[in-house]
Amino acid sequence: MKNTAVLLIDCPDRKGLVARVAGLLYERGANILHADQHQDHDLGLFFMRVEWATAWGSPLDESGARDAVRADAFDGNFDLEGFRDAFAVLARELGMRWQLTTNARRPRVALFCSQFLHCMADLLHRWRTGELDCEIPLIVSNHRAVEQLAGFYGVPFEYVPVTAAARGEAEAHQLALLEQHGVDLVVLARYMQILSPAFVARYPAAIINVHHSFLPAFTGARPYHAAHARGVKLIGATSHYVTEALDDGPIIEQDVARISHRDQVEDLVARGRDLERLVLARAVRWHLDRRILCYGNKTVVFD
Amino acid sequence: MKNTAVLLIDCPDRKGLVARVAGLLYERGANILHADQHQDHDLGLFFMRVEWATAWGSPLDESGARDAVRADAFDGNFDLEGFRDAFAVLARELGMRWQLTTNARRPRVALFCSQFLHCMADLLHRWRTGELDCEIPLIVSNHRAVEQLAGFYGVPFEYVPVTAAARGEAEAHQLALLEQHGVDLVVLARYMQILSPAFVARYPAAIINVHHSFLPAFTGARPYHAAHARGVKLIGATSHYVTEALDDGPIIEQDVARISHRDQVEDLVARGRDLERLVLARAVRWHLDRRILCYGNKTVVFD
Amino acid sequence: MKNTAVLLIDCPDRKGLVARVAGLLYERGANILHADQHQDHDLGLFFMRVEWATAWGSPLDESGARDAVRADAFDGNFDLEGFRDAFAVLARELGMRWQLTTNARRPRVALFCSQFLHCMADLLHRWRTGELDCEIPLIVSNHRAVEQLAGFYGVPFEYVPVTAAARGEAEAHQLALLEQHGVDLVVLARYMQILSPAFVARYPAAIINVHHSFLPAFTGARPYHAAHARGVKLIGATSHYVTEALDDGPIIEQDVARISHRDQVEDLVARGRDLERLVLARAVRWHLDRRILCYGNKTVVFD
Amino acid sequence: MKNTAVLLIDCPDRKGLVARVAGLLYERGANILHADQHQDHDLGLFFMRVEWATAWGSPLDESGARDAVRADAFDGNFDLEGFRDAFAVLARELGMRWQLTTNARRPRVALFCSQFLHCMADLLHRWRTGELDCEIPLIVSNHRAVEQLAGFYGVPFEYVPVTAAARGEAEAHQLALLEQHGVDLVVLARYMQILSPAFVARYPAAIINVHHSFLPAFTGARPYHAAHARGVKLIGATSHYVTEALDDGPIIEQDVARISHRDQVEDLVARGRDLERLVLARAVRWHLDRRILCYGNKTVVFD
Repeated sequence: MKNTAVLLIDCPDRKGLVARVAGLLYERGANILHADQHQDHDLGLFFMRVEWATAWGSPLDESGARDAVRADAFDGNFDLEGFRDAFAVLARELGMRWQLTTNARRPRVALFCSQFLHCMADLLHRWRTGELDCEIPLIVSNHRAVEQLAGFYGVPFEYVPVTAAARGEAEAHQLALLEQHGVDLVVLARYMQILSPAFVARYPAAIINVHHSFLPAFTGARPYHAAHARGVKLIGATSHYVTEALDDGPIIEQDVARISHRDQVEDLVARGRDLERLVLARAVRWHLDRRILCYGNKTVVFD
Repeated sequence: MKNTAVLLIDCPDRKGLVARVAGLLYERGANILHADQHQDHDLGLFFMRVEWATAWGSPLDESGARDAVRADAFDGNFDLEGFRDAFAVLARELGMRWQLTTNARRPRVALFCSQFLHCMADLLHRWRTGELDCEIPLIVSNHRAVEQLAGFYGVPFEYVPVTAAARGEAEAHQLALLEQHGVDLVVLARYMQILSPAFVARYPAAIINVHHSFLPAFTGARPYHAAHARGVKLIGATSHYVTEALDDGPIIEQDVARISHRDQVEDLVARGRDLERLVLARAVRWHLDRRILCYGNKTVVFD
Repeated sequence: MKNTAVLLIDCPDRKGLVARVAGLLYERGANILHADQHQDHDLGLFFMRVEWATAWGSPLDESGARDAVRADAFDGNFDLEGFRDAFAVLARELGMRWQLTTNARRPRVALFCSQFLHCMADLLHRWRTGELDCEIPLIVSNHRAVEQLAGFYGVPFEYVPVTAAARGEAEAHQLALLEQHGVDLVVLARYMQILSPAFVARYPAAIINVHHSFLPAFTGARPYHAAHARGVKLIGATSHYVTEALDDGPIIEQDVARISHRDQVEDLVARGRDLERLVLARAVRWHLDRRILCYGNKTVVFD
Repeated sequence: MKNTAVLLIDCPDRKGLVARVAGLLYERGANILHADQHQDHDLGLFFMRVEWATAWGSPLDESGARDAVRADAFDGNFDLEGFRDAFAVLARELGMRWQLTTNARRPRVALFCSQFLHCMADLLHRWRTGELDCEIPLIVSNHRAVEQLAGFYGVPFEYVPVTAAARGEAEAHQLALLEQHGVDLVVLARYMQILSPAFVARYPAAIINVHHSFLPAFTGARPYHAAHARGVKLIGATSHYVTEALDDGPIIEQDVARISHRDQVEDLVARGRDLERLVLARAVRWHLDRRILCYGNKTVVFD
């Protein structure tokens, strides 16, 4: 497992941005592993993601040919704090918004669900097998259905019932739990309650939801019923960041599956579960890999 | 090229429908090539499509093993009119709506377009190479852009300009042309004018349109602009029968393509052209093959 | 949960097959839920699947309109054994191979795996939530990695190590376990050992494997490495019945995912896991729903 | 239509490559429109594509807000030859292979086909509507079927029959035509003759073929027959650069379509035509946009 740093940048586009950033990294001795940039020409915006090695824990066992190529790459530790200070100066000059993170500290993720557990079981299995690089200190549900599964994976479970009358108290309880566990990201794995604007405002671009339709078609409740009634030939699922407006946040990922006249609503529900699992898992992984930048109501997903 | 008949049925579901229909065909000596049925359990409806050989123009050159199997199949002509009379009695008894057609008479199709010709060029090429089994007696457009292409394929072209002030006259002209050419099916191959309810009522389930979005998302004008603004990760196209309500008729086919943050509106337009071509061509072919049954606002597409 | 019977038929094609089968079912009072047939015109073969209700455990709560339609459908129990006897006579006359099964007895499935558990975890979750209608009396592995997961789902686990020297003994042990547990279907959920022809011969069309490539490309070991070396732009996975010839049995389902030059072998492995899960789960479900007929080295999958 | 330059680079990976290249472009005043790089960590290779504006033919009609952002971008012409000289020095130092091209000179493309014209008709329509930015000075075929289509699009047609006995002469004739027309890229749009190694050697990474299977499955003749015989559930098509080894060159693009047991060979052929059109058109467009780098037997396709 290597140690890496990721720098995410967005700013007004102008000449020389790549040269300035790449130049500083080169000067500081960074061994760049991945770099990607994007320009939105219509809006005049620039986006960049750079990932580089900061340290290597184990001796190399590469073949001679590759050693030669990579010789200058593995020269010990990168001075991350020194870089941060130098970059801050540059960023101020160029009007950049930026985040610099390392995988030394793993993000802390809370999973929310209701009675349907397919996304939850999928995320927990991926986490257990190392596909999701995070801590999961907390599972929250308004049902007890997930309790056994949480136990199997050794994740503390908190039962927080939600009633129309006491929604505010429930959210206060949830927020206290999130704070107490130092949660960075909330994943709504088919959590069937609507979060209040106040809750959402506490975690900007840090709550990921899966909606069981191809947004913006079929927002709101019972999208498979609506899709069946409309007679569509493909159903979809969408993962997105949660904002105040229901089902209207920046889309991270979407996928579809072909259906036919033979499929009744319950078939759509079953087919849809596979889509939901996939688009939610991808969104969570990309977020954890710091591949996503939000701007306006859209996302850049670096690949 | 074999001669075949196709029977399309829809009616309230009840026991014995397949047995009764198949029994009558067997009794009359039909050699069934394809049969498919569908039940909508929620609505209690039954749908069926049967296709059988009515005559064979050429001697067989099959191998012995297959001759044995098919020996009883190729026994001359099927008495279609006798079957029609007998079936009418059965259909009345069982409350069936039905269509019985043969490929002896090829459907007559009119193609409408405006200035974008990708769907038109695609349909004409498919027609020329035998993929679409129909006559095309007429191309209508409110632009002259298609004139050369129509000439190359030897299809009469009618220029019918449409202005807001004289929309009624234009439609009257179009309808007269359709009648004069005995048109059975109108295909709107990116025809950018809205047809009046009166026009649509003249061709129920016989006008096919392609809309450049994944309906019901992004109805109306400039769907690619809307898709880009919403930040979707897939774009789509939809072919459907035209009804009074704009972009709301029974969906025949849909398809999607993946896009990314790198794609600007003009990229969506270019990617979308390939989708539009495919979903429109499939819809037209299925209609010509009499594979489609409309019910409510949905389609059954037998495959 | 309704009780249903399924009849699967394959035989030489001839006139009147649908009429004869549907006629007998109608005469016996069957309420057909689904019927589908297929003709392979090249080979002169006919295939049919019919599913009908045999009993209904609960009173109906349908609306009046639907009651009227369905009134004659729910008239108590179907005499399955009487039908079986009558059908056997017909089948003999028409040279049919056939299977008649009901969901009164749930199939018994054994799951085999090695150290990778993504397919296993997926199948067990689907089983727990009712998506797979079967008993799972047994999990067998040559690794202990699956033991905890088996325990969580309450399925007996048998550790059967396999060495090159003692492969025969291991298989004898496995076969004894299968017999002891009355297993009908063996699912190889990334079981990385090759079964001997003698083992395979004991379960014809009753062992389902998932291979991590788009067969017939990249048979054998390390298909993701081979795909990466060849520079393909899509990777795939295939579920199939196991036959004597490695990776050459009748294909049940395949799917693919797009990759790019950015994806290294480990990315292919990760992307592929999602494909493997899906194509294996679909194959198992279709087999349990008795939707699959094998002929030659191919499958008919009724949908 | 803007004027742009594209620089494609591949070389051994080492620190500072992006910084050096971006720095030089910045220093020379380039307004970068797109930049993308890729590292093959296993092989220790680095790939880069940069596209920048070299001149702008028309005054801007952008809004004020965007003018401010882009003010420094549109400052007249870029000294391309000066940059070329400076970059050559850098490239030598860093061991780079590189190509520097502009769209001032449009590539010259020859299209080859045999009797099936779906790819040819598709490419010519795309070319006519501006989707393919090239000259097409020449269509070559061993059949006369394409002659009318060539005439419609105003492209000179050369009939070059190929017989087993006189293959060498035919190729000599073809090569003379290519030279005479200054052809840069040869596109085999379902050209059903195998080119000799000597021919291929004359156009390295400059002959694009479409093969009607999902390579490496079903190389050679009649792949749809082979796919049908194997009972696959998806069919595919592949565009690739032609090398000496048949159907074994670097893959540029692949796509697949789902089929079922109902599809006979002729259905596969029809479905496959749509795939062939798409994968070939994409490959040609990407080549013309200078998005493709070959290395080993693989491609990097910058998006």
